[in-house]
Amino acid sequence: MKSTTKPWIFTASCPSVIGTVDVVTRFMAESGNYVDEIHSFDDREANRFFIRIEFFPQSADFSADEFRAEFGPKAKQFEMEWALTEPNHRPRVAIMVSKYDHCLNDLLYRYRTGQLNIEVPVIISNHPDLEPLAEWHGIPYYHLPITADTKPQQEAQVIELIEKYDAELVILARYMQVLSPEMCNYLDGRAINIHHSLLPGFKGARPYHQAWEKGVKMVGATAHYVNNDLDEGPIIAQGIQTVDHAHYPEDLVAKGQDIERVTLFNAVKYHVEKRVFLNGKRTVVFGR
Amino acid sequence: MKSTTKPWIFTASCPSVIGTVDVVTRFMAESGNYVDEIHSFDDREANRFFIRIEFFPQSADFSADEFRAEFGPKAKQFEMEWALTEPNHRPRVAIMVSKYDHCLNDLLYRYRTGQLNIEVPVIISNHPDLEPLAEWHGIPYYHLPITADTKPQQEAQVIELIEKYDAELVILARYMQVLSPEMCNYLDGRAINIHHSLLPGFKGARPYHQAWEKGVKMVGATAHYVNNDLDEGPIIAQGIQTVDHAHYPEDLVAKGQDIERVTLFNAVKYHVEKRVFLNGKRTVVFGR
Amino acid sequence: MKSTTKPWIFTASCPSVIGTVDVVTRFMAESGNYVDEIHSFDDREANRFFIRIEFFPQSADFSADEFRAEFGPKAKQFEMEWALTEPNHRPRVAIMVSKYDHCLNDLLYRYRTGQLNIEVPVIISNHPDLEPLAEWHGIPYYHLPITADTKPQQEAQVIELIEKYDAELVILARYMQVLSPEMCNYLDGRAINIHHSLLPGFKGARPYHQAWEKGVKMVGATAHYVNNDLDEGPIIAQGIQTVDHAHYPEDLVAKGQDIERVTLFNAVKYHVEKRVFLNGKRTVVFGR
Amino acid sequence: MKSTTKPWIFTASCPSVIGTVDVVTRFMAESGNYVDEIHSFDDREANRFFIRIEFFPQSADFSADEFRAEFGPKAKQFEMEWALTEPNHRPRVAIMVSKYDHCLNDLLYRYRTGQLNIEVPVIISNHPDLEPLAEWHGIPYYHLPITADTKPQQEAQVIELIEKYDAELVILARYMQVLSPEMCNYLDGRAINIHHSLLPGFKGARPYHQAWEKGVKMVGATAHYVNNDLDEGPIIAQGIQTVDHAHYPEDLVAKGQDIERVTLFNAVKYHVEKRVFLNGKRTVVFGR
Repeated sequence: MKSTTKPWIFTASCPSVIGTVDVVTRFMAESGNYVDEIHSFDDREANRFFIRIEFFPQSADFSADEFRAEFGPKAKQFEMEWALTEPNHRPRVAIMVSKYDHCLNDLLYRYRTGQLNIEVPVIISNHPDLEPLAEWHGIPYYHLPITADTKPQQEAQVIELIEKYDAELVILARYMQVLSPEMCNYLDGRAINIHHSLLPGFKGARPYHQAWEKGVKMVGATAHYVNNDLDEGPIIAQGIQTVDHAHYPEDLVAKGQDIERVTLFNAVKYHVEKRVFLNGKRTVVFGR
Repeated sequence: MKSTTKPWIFTASCPSVIGTVDVVTRFMAESGNYVDEIHSFDDREANRFFIRIEFFPQSADFSADEFRAEFGPKAKQFEMEWALTEPNHRPRVAIMVSKYDHCLNDLLYRYRTGQLNIEVPVIISNHPDLEPLAEWHGIPYYHLPITADTKPQQEAQVIELIEKYDAELVILARYMQVLSPEMCNYLDGRAINIHHSLLPGFKGARPYHQAWEKGVKMVGATAHYVNNDLDEGPIIAQGIQTVDHAHYPEDLVAKGQDIERVTLFNAVKYHVEKRVFLNGKRTVVFGR
Repeated sequence: MKSTTKPWIFTASCPSVIGTVDVVTRFMAESGNYVDEIHSFDDREANRFFIRIEFFPQSADFSADEFRAEFGPKAKQFEMEWALTEPNHRPRVAIMVSKYDHCLNDLLYRYRTGQLNIEVPVIISNHPDLEPLAEWHGIPYYHLPITADTKPQQEAQVIELIEKYDAELVILARYMQVLSPEMCNYLDGRAINIHHSLLPGFKGARPYHQAWEKGVKMVGATAHYVNNDLDEGPIIAQGIQTVDHAHYPEDLVAKGQDIERVTLFNAVKYHVEKRVFLNGKRTVVFGR
Repeated sequence: MKSTTKPWIFTASCPSVIGTVDVVTRFMAESGNYVDEIHSFDDREANRFFIRIEFFPQSADFSADEFRAEFGPKAKQFEMEWALTEPNHRPRVAIMVSKYDHCLNDLLYRYRTGQLNIEVPVIISNHPDLEPLAEWHGIPYYHLPITADTKPQQEAQVIELIEKYDAELVILARYMQVLSPEMCNYLDGRAINIHHSLLPGFKGARPYHQAWEKGVKMVGATAHYVNNDLDEGPIIAQGIQTVDHAHYPEDLVAKGQDIERVTLFNAVKYHVEKRVFLNGKRTVVFGR
């Protein structure tokens, strides 16, 4: 069983009823899959069950299609939403940026060095500034300027690029634009945004300046799924940094960048490793 | 100079003009006081200067009165608010509580063991529950019940006790009552409250329940001076604790208690050691 | 399924072979137990499997004896070490102390307020100092002085008390004595010690003084199971605190107390909630 | 006085005697310099005084040379080691690396974006791997391979490059080579190394593997000045990361990289901002 290869990942959620665990683990045993790690959780408020399993098929001729065909009907009985993710799955990710490059630089570094198991086929921005960074990593960069007037057209172009490059996840790495409701709907559940405050504190614009006004002793960052409610999408990860009276707003901005990029990275990694489940307005995260 | 005795503490603030440091340090040198530690800070937004000095008088017949008499006129020139605090100063502190005892237990433990250099001559509560804890520490405990109707009378009784016991600081150690504007005015700048959230997030009632609704991944606590604006007094200290999806509101309440009591202790210690300066709606804290 | 009652807890470990998860979860399903939370982990270095399940029996006449009788033979097939813990299990804990009271005060506070689901039938010390604290909590306190000469006799008395009071866990809450090999053997795997450094750094005596000599910028604490190798028992929990140049050894001692007591509490809570598994010289901790 | 320009920095240390503060602050006042921030500290064990002042000259024709000429004799009286650092001082820094690029990438990012106020005229490595990264930043990269036999020659080449490029600070950003005593002497007090453990724990090779063997629950990193005693140089900054049983050595390596690069950055920033003072085997760091 000792192995340093990557496991297959099985994830599922469904209403809480007896037998949910058993239907999964029995199937694993009967189909000869070695279960390496399980996390399960029942939310007693939402009456919903969540499970994530890492497993190693023991049979040389393991077939994902067969797994899906055989497990499908069982899942249906439990109204289960489920997914099987292969060891080498590298989701295609579109990154959207504005002028700040700290998050982009960090994501590309981790992408380049294999810390983030993703493909980055495209970077989209409303400013030309970060093109050299994209270029050095050999990634196509699209500069799509935006004004209040051209927002619908620009967002249409963005969607076109997301589809052209077949991105299953969009990362808003300090994109700094308020998305239209249509765009939010389009991205719902498959875009991760980084907000530079500990939400729900300091929503909206210039959160570090708001924080300074209040004389806080800690600033934070929040990575969350995009939904229709600005800065209110389900939270995936948060991080904080201590500060003191000697930090002016520009110092908070600078100091916050470190926590922003780590928090965004954590959220993306959790998402890519299939550790995150939507649970109404909240998330379940089987972290490590 | 090597000494493990406690230093005298000099603190001052005044408008930012040239010479503020010099008037202080020159006086120290000329009056034969050995300066052990200086923190100074100029707030360029508020145009205000803050300084805290720990010093050891070198002369056997050092006199605080003489210090005050000689330094007073110099201070006046700079419109300085200043204070001289003796090594053995133990401020008299009234503690107000409701039913939760985690903060009280912690404060009394640190008081009893000398970690907090204070006197606690009186504990006041709107409930009888924590009397045994007070009694074990040999501290008078006053049970003053409160209703919407009796609030003015009860607050008058509280003020009477604060004055009877000559308390220079009041700690609201989860007192859980909204104070009247009159009471807030009375306590302005000399009462420290602990709020169980990272303010300004989750103001008001049941912050842990609010936090759970939002699915946050961190909960916090804030110790601040009381002023007239509920949960908006100048922040002295904040603390946080990470949480996850498996924490129901009651778990947040339990987990938050550890961070509440440490945050309150930190704030009180900073205050007692004269490390905190009011600076408009913000504070300057020369921490360590 | 919605319930705020406490769950039953099932824990097991055994060699890593296929079917380990299935034998447990199938039994749960077949005996009508609702699985609320699973953590499992396979250590691929040790080739060992660990699982912890929280479950709610669905049948009114659930019987632990029946569970044990039925599951026993299945467990045997897998060479499983396993335990079933009832919702109201409150382990009996003997606490051993010396003169420092910060850990004892903290444990008793949490015991008294229900944060730690334990019984404390006895406190044992080589000094009389902490008797009043024990007395206030209504707990028998035994003062058993110790010298190099009387160590064997004293330890024999300690063992007698542990057995008289039927303690299943012993907490060394800054007991400050080096135990004899015989005593270590006796306590192996059922005693938790708190050491005031981030082990394996600063083993042995006066770790804060060692830390000060080295000019560290962080001090820590380690809670670990007692075994025969001084300060080398399997680590359960660690905590740290930042410090700076202005902290003399006595400041490190004072500051470290907060992290010691929280770290010890965390370890004891994990142990009591059956979250800790021995894994050779290491532990598996299904934390939260 | 309100200003967002950078201050001049004055730093000094000397034996602890009365008058040390006064000689400095009086000079500041008399020469018309506005003191914006002071940190001073007296180490009562070492009997040594440390001071760091940020100031803004008020006179248009402020001259550093004049400052030095006038203050020099006063400093001499107190056996003061002191320095005056101009607002735009950007120290020239040579970075040495091996194959790991996480620290280099981070330092260059902060250099490029102005977070670190330095010049990086040269990067030196015993491997060719990181040349593209250097090239993209437009920095000369020297590949100087090393073997046991060629160490003296290689180190001589390194020294030649440090001098050719006039570097006043050398950063060992995971250089991974044990330096000869001669090289250590050469770099004494002007080279910063990052070690991937919380020193003095896990000195020497493969600290993450050592940490895994011990089953620690936290891993750390230490940035320290190089001196002759391997991994024993004065500590400037430390950082930690929590881990659990599911982290194999390679996971610790990966997770530790984040804390290594932040810890190294903090130390370099403190050094560049003149916040660090050597104090025997320890440091005084006037952090923020």
